[in-house]
This record gives sequence, structure tokens and C-alpha cells, in this order.
Amino acid sequence: MSKPEAALHAQSLDIASLQTAYREGRLTPLDVVDEVLRRTAEDPNCVWITRLSDDAIRRYAQALAGRDPASLPLYGIPFAIKDNIDLAGVPTTAACREFAYTPQASAFVVQRLIEAGAIPIGKTNLDQFATGLNGTRSPWGACRNAFNPDYISGGSSSGSAVAVAKGYVSFALGTDTAGSGRVPAAFNNLVGHKPTLGWLSTTGVVPACRSLDTVSVFALTADDAEAVTGVAAAFDADDCFAREPEGHGFDFGSASRFRVGVPPSEQLAFFGNDEARRLFGEAIARIESLGGEVVEVDLQSFIDTAKLLYDGPWVAERYAAIREFFDANPAVPLPVIREIIGGARRWSAADAYTFGYRLKAAKRQCDAIWERIDCVLTPTAGTIYTIAEMLADPIRLNANLGTYTNFMNLLDYAATAVPVGFQSDGLPFGVTLFSCAHQDGPLLRLAARMQRALGAQLGATGLPMPGAFENPLLPSGQVRVAVCG
Amino acid sequence: MSKPEAALHAQSLDIASLQTAYREGRLTPLDVVDEVLRRTAEDPNCVWITRLSDDAIRRYAQALAGRDPASLPLYGIPFAIKDNIDLAGVPTTAACREFAYTPQASAFVVQRLIEAGAIPIGKTNLDQFATGLNGTRSPWGACRNAFNPDYISGGSSSGSAVAVAKGYVSFALGTDTAGSGRVPAAFNNLVGHKPTLGWLSTTGVVPACRSLDTVSVFALTADDAEAVTGVAAAFDADDCFAREPEGHGFDFGSASRFRVGVPPSEQLAFFGNDEARRLFGEAIARIESLGGEVVEVDLQSFIDTAKLLYDGPWVAERYAAIREFFDANPAVPLPVIREIIGGARRWSAADAYTFGYRLKAAKRQCDAIWERIDCVLTPTAGTIYTIAEMLADPIRLNANLGTYTNFMNLLDYAATAVPVGFQSDGLPFGVTLFSCAHQDGPLLRLAARMQRALGAQLGATGLPMPGAFENPLLPSGQVRVAVCG
Repeated sequence: MSKPEAALHAQSLDIASLQTAYREGRLTPLDVVDEVLRRTAEDPNCVWITRLSDDAIRRYAQALAGRDPASLPLYGIPFAIKDNIDLAGVPTTAACREFAYTPQASAFVVQRLIEAGAIPIGKTNLDQFATGLNGTRSPWGACRNAFNPDYISGGSSSGSAVAVAKGYVSFALGTDTAGSGRVPAAFNNLVGHKPTLGWLSTTGVVPACRSLDTVSVFALTADDAEAVTGVAAAFDADDCFAREPEGHGFDFGSASRFRVGVPPSEQLAFFGNDEARRLFGEAIARIESLGGEVVEVDLQSFIDTAKLLYDGPWVAERYAAIREFFDANPAVPLPVIREIIGGARRWSAADAYTFGYRLKAAKRQCDAIWERIDCVLTPTAGTIYTIAEMLADPIRLNANLGTYTNFMNLLDYAATAVPVGFQSDGLPFGVTLFSCAHQDGPLLRLAARMQRALGAQLGATGLPMPGAFENPLLPSGQVRVAVCG
Repeated sequence: MSKPEAALHAQSLDIASLQTAYREGRLTPLDVVDEVLRRTAEDPNCVWITRLSDDAIRRYAQALAGRDPASLPLYGIPFAIKDNIDLAGVPTTAACREFAYTPQASAFVVQRLIEAGAIPIGKTNLDQFATGLNGTRSPWGACRNAFNPDYISGGSSSGSAVAVAKGYVSFALGTDTAGSGRVPAAFNNLVGHKPTLGWLSTTGVVPACRSLDTVSVFALTADDAEAVTGVAAAFDADDCFAREPEGHGFDFGSASRFRVGVPPSEQLAFFGNDEARRLFGEAIARIESLGGEVVEVDLQSFIDTAKLLYDGPWVAERYAAIREFFDANPAVPLPVIREIIGGARRWSAADAYTFGYRLKAAKRQCDAIWERIDCVLTPTAGTIYTIAEMLADPIRLNANLGTYTNFMNLLDYAATAVPVGFQSDGLPFGVTLFSCAHQDGPLLRLAARMQRALGAQLGATGLPMPGAFENPLLPSGQVRVAVCG
């Protein structure tokens, strides 16, 4: 192996490192995609549903020829796309062959990323119809954890997370309704940012629960997640759920003193995983060392809200999303998916409204927390399971995974999952920082400080954190005044 | 009849006139309630479900003894309460005897009004469970129009409107889900203000469609409606639909030049009533004379949205509101109410979500109008019917009445119904000014100018408009920034 070749094999794909290499002329996008093709020649983790052809990928790289690397915020940055998000000319399957269609246009956010210079590598595996938090529910095979193939990857954005963790791509798009953009981040030592609902367009995305869906971002670093979110976030007038970013208040992510809520130990569920409990304790100490004043907060109303999602009628949104297909093809979905989505038909419109009122009341109660603190720190998931364990008890264990994630979109909060270290068995553990809507910037900046303070490897690459880099800023938001005319 | 007695009999109950009389020492609250008792000794229009006892009313007046009239914004102002809104110790029926209960506490808004010096006179007749826009659907009898007892009063807040129009009270509370606070205003020559959703608490109000309900205000003048709204509007933490007023932008209600949208004539439905068409044309001319630049706007998407309300699953909110009672007492509601609310059970949760998405998309389309204009002018209702006509064709004619009102709460707009003159048969006609949420102040101020420019009588009292008076201002609103902590 020649020296440049060796250097390329050891190249970190984090955005900061690639940008530096491009600007210094050490690499070209073609070098990077050739390395990506090498790394993705095999797929032992069942990451891909469709990896693009070598030629198709190289064409994206060639299209950047002659462009100034500094002129495009994501110049030559390879990325992966969860296969419920459209890429023009490539099938979108939602992990169901019979459902697949080939879109003419890319999803709004994919188009923005490509226009910013990013290079799509492929469409990733997922829990069918984005229904699940574990990554085993796919006809393309259970997606395997980047650290230990016996373990689940987390889902539903399973392939997207593992593609980033394995160093196949710099970042990946997921979707997140109940935790699908955060649980796989935790299980693969990544940052997973679940933006404020409506910031990232869902035009060209197969819906799960439309009122709760968002596109999400997996990245090796929180800085990268902020850069990608900043490019992807733009108001899409064709998406009726789109919202303009509002100005955030106090930037607790950059402040030397801030208040962080932590639930009392009796509200922490680690499902017998003492390593996870230890790592969560260390994360609290780390956030204190960064200036966080830890405030114990009662999360019972959040946990109760989380239960609304699985015990309530929102599953009918999943049915509504694919109603015609589901009714016409009753035997096609995986049995567990059939059971979940088919169960939606027992809920009436009166139930939907009644649970909507309950959620409104729960949100009022939960929102009171923001008078006392700036953000909350919880585990992302209390523990992790093997693929065998998950297949043996698919509904109950999946519900355990959502303990700290299910309430987030119901309550219209923004959240960032961030790695905080490793269990003694080598599996990663992660926490989530969350706050109210439009606090994406502060959350990502605080996540970046936590990640730097930890100083661990990037994903499962064994490579170290890069130096600081200047992000394209997140939309700074607007002060909102009701105005006509 | 002595001279003071004659003066009292001719006393206008508009708030400005009563405040002046109180401050000049010409009247006391006891004088006014005695006059109210005289005027309400009989009830030929079926206004009341419960008029309070003479003693109970006098006690409210006596409680004001020794208070400075200037210290309370509604000192000694008599008002009526739609009988789906709680007054402590008095049954709330929602126009259904079997449903009735006697609340311990008054509704949040009622309590605020009483604390501001207002005197409750009674609970008013309504379309059962606030389901209807016509005022005939009550076991207490069809409420009769204040100008011609053969005609409908409009509903569902029928008794509240007629009580104000007849000079029984200064103002009245209604509720408004699909037009119940506006249609009866139009039919009785009143101002009917439907506030921005969430400004007026619904704690202590029997729900109709909880996501679309608001308490509304009937008054003789727009100034009075602004004064009452200003007192009633306060954030109620116990009402999960409560919202803080946001700052409005341009105050088109006070501006010398503003832009007002008017639908093209082919989108105007007067159901054969040429007098209504003529009066609407005059209203356009009047608003132009006040500085309004008339802009033709396509209201088709608004009209389509209105249809969603009756052709969609929102009726399931009505069922959800009284589900236990309705299931346990199938034969109790009026046949037309039974048919409407019972029909809710055919809608599934998936339908509720699907129509919710359609509404989101429709709102996006409709909201585009606010880039071109400040407010819209439409008829409040295209025509009026006799009670006999309504009883003969109760569903279809009721739907006609909602043409210009049904979309308002679905789209989260604020609206003010304002009188604009009389048909040659002596029946009043009214228009509605509407705008986006939080524009209550500008709407009410523009309505006040239209009312002064017309200079007609107050309600059905035959009394003239009072001079200008200083309102307690509406909440001026807050600039909204997403802030944690």
C-alpha cells in the first residue's frame, strides 16, 4: 500500500477534516468517492437497500470539477439517505419491495444538500415503514451494530446510522417520529440531531406519523450535525407542516453557566444495565464540569406522555399514510408491522380528538419545566439488546428503547443525541439533550462541548475528534410577530 | 310615568352610556338592574333558559355599593351568559335538561367579568349543545328574531344575541365554533366578536368542538365589544388551548389607508336575497370611504375549507365532548342533534388525521392572502330564513348560514361581525371583517369606524350610537420569541 493510499484509508470523513483536505488541495471529491467505494464494496452490516452504482457516485463527484471548495458548504461530502426519503431516479422502498416507487425528483432536503455539494452514496436500510426503534424489522436483513454485529443497530434509521459510524459517509439523513433518529445514534457512537418539527421539509419523504415526523441528521460530530442542519433547514411552502425558525432565547449551548434538568434516579430506567447507569452518571459530571447547574426535575409527565404514543391513536397516522397500499396488500408487510399498523383501525375519530386534548394538557404540564431550566439530560435509550433478544420479544423490548424518545415530537421539542462513552463490553452509550422548539442551535453547541470534553473516537472508525471548525450557522431565527400585509 | 322613570325606560345599556351615567351620578347599578328586571319581566322571544331571580341580580348590584365607578372597567354593566358557560350556583343546561349540572364555580371568563363589576342577568337559550347556526334547536323554544318574531334569531348563541338586541343587557357571552357568535349578531343588528382562538379561556364551558371553540362577545357597539374582550382575555393556565396574545402588526383598524379583500361576485352567495346583495355593496362603498383599498380576492379555498367542517370528521369532537352522556341517553337529544352528533361515529382516527393534514394544506393556501391584504370583508350570512322555513329544511338551510363563518376557526382567524343596515322589510344585515390570528384589536377598531359611519340604531332598541368613549385597551400582545428559562 502506497503512502497516499494508506493516508486515504485512514482519512476521517468528518466534514471538518474533509473540508480542510479539499481546501489544502490534498484530496479531490473523486479521491474521496473512490475511497468510499472501497469501503462499501462489502456490506456485512446490511446497511444498504440501494448503494448507488460506482458510475453514478463518480458523476456526482465529477460535477464538482472546477468549483471552489470554499464556495459550497458541503463540497464533496459523501452522505447516505434513509430509504424512505426520495433521491431522484433511485427507488424509494421504505423497506418494502412491493411498496417501492422511483421518484422523479429528490426530496426537498436531499436536493438542498446536493446543491450544496454533498454526494449521495446510497439509500439505507430501515425498520419497515419506519416503524420500530431497533433495526431488525427489514426484509433486507437486520441491520447490525457497528461495534458488535450480534447487537441491534437501533432503528428505524438503522442503515443511516451504521453507514456514518463505519466511515462509509460523512453524514446521513434519517427520519424521526418516536426516536428513529436518536436511538441508532446512541447505539453507534454518533450524534443524532432531531430538529424542531417543521424545520426540515418532509416533501419527498414517506410519512410515518405526519404530525410527528421530521427528517433527522446523523453525524460524527455535533459540529457536523449543525452544518448539515443549517444547509438542510429551509422553509418549504409545499410542506404544510413547514415552520420558519423562530429566534431562540438564551444560547445555553455557548454559555459558561446554564441550567440542565436531570430526572431523579427512580425515574431512570436502565433495564438492569449498570454500565449504562454508570455512564449516565459520568455524563452528568461532565456537563457540570462544562458549567451546567444540575437541577433535579420530575419527568413523570414526560414519561406519561411517551406512553400516549403507543397506547393511543397516533398509530392511525401510520395507517393513514399507506392506507390504500395496506388495504390492498394485507399479507405483504412484515408480521410485526402488520400487527402494529393493522391495530390502528380500532381507533375512532373521537379517540383521535380526545387523545389530542390529553396531549395538549400534557404539553402544558411538561412545558412548565422550561421556567426552571434550559435543557434536559436523559439517557437516549436505557439499554441495548442483541438481535436475538429483540427478535424473541419484538414489541416489549422495542417499547423499552423509546422510554426517553417517544415524547419528544408529541411535545414539539428539539433533541440532540450525543455519545458519552463505552460500556466495558465495548458498546457505546449515549445521552440526549432536549429543549423546547427552535433551540436547535444551543442544543447542538452544548452537544459539541460535551463531545469535545469526552474526546472519544468518531463513530466506530477509531479516528479521533478533528479540530474546531467554522460552521455555516444554523438559521438564527426570526422574532415572530403576527403580521398581516 | 315620572320623568326619571321615562329616562330610565329610554336608557341605552351600551357600556359608554352607562359608564357616563354612573360617573355623573345620574344612575346607580340598582337603578339599572331594576330597569333590566322590568324589561325582562316577560320573554316573548324565548331568550332565557334561566333568568336569575330578582334578588340574586340585586345582590350583584348591591355588592358594588361603595366602589368607585371609575375603578372597575365594567362597573354595573348587566350581561347575559349563553347556557353552555358556567355561572356558579346556576344550572348549565347546554339546552338539554337531562344533561344539566350546577357548577360550583363560574367559568374563568365569567369570573373575570364579575370581578370587573359586570352583573349577570341570566343564562340564555341556544341551539342544543351549541350545534346549529339558526336558533330553533332548543327544547326551550325557537329563539325569535329581535326585529320580527317570525324570523330566526340565528344561533347557536341565539338568546345571548337577542338579549343584547332587545336592550335586556349591555353585552352577552356566546360561544363560536362554526359561526355561533357571528350569525346571530348579523340577524339582530349587533357586533359579534369571535376572538382569536385561545384568547378567552374555555374553562367552565361545555365543549362543542374543543379544537375550534372560543367564547365570543355580543355587544351593541364595537367599542363595547373591545372593552369586554379586553377584560375577558387573560391567559388561563388551566385551559390547554389558551394562548398568550401576540403583538399584531399594522393596525389597519386605525389607519387612514388599508387594504381590504372582497370576493368576486360569483363567489358571493345570497341565496336569492337581492336586498342582502345591495347592502353588501353599500358596505364595500362605506369601507372604501373610510380609506379601504378594495382588492378582489379569490375565496374559493376558504369556501372549500368551510366544507371540510361539515363533510369531515370534526363532528366527532362534538361526540367526544358528551360521549358518555350521548351513549347513555340515546333518545334524549333533539332528533336533528341526534342525527348530527350520532353521525360522528362513522369517522375513524385515520380519517381524523387525514382531514387534519388537508386542513393544514388548506391553511397554507388560504394564508397566502395575508401577503396582499390586511383583512377580508364578506357577508356574515348570505340571507335569513323564517322559523317555519328553517324547521322544514333544518340541515341544508343551516349549512347555507355557515358559508362565510365555517372556515374561520379551522383556519385560526379572528373575526368581527358588524351591522351594515336594513333590508326594506326591516330585517338587519351584517358583514364580517376577518384577519389572521391576534388581529382582534385592528378588526374591532375598523368595525367601530364602520358602525359610526353607518350611524344606525343600537340592536333593536331604536336608540342611537353613543359618543366615542375610551376603552380599556385590548391586550397589546407580546412579541414572541422562543425562550427557555
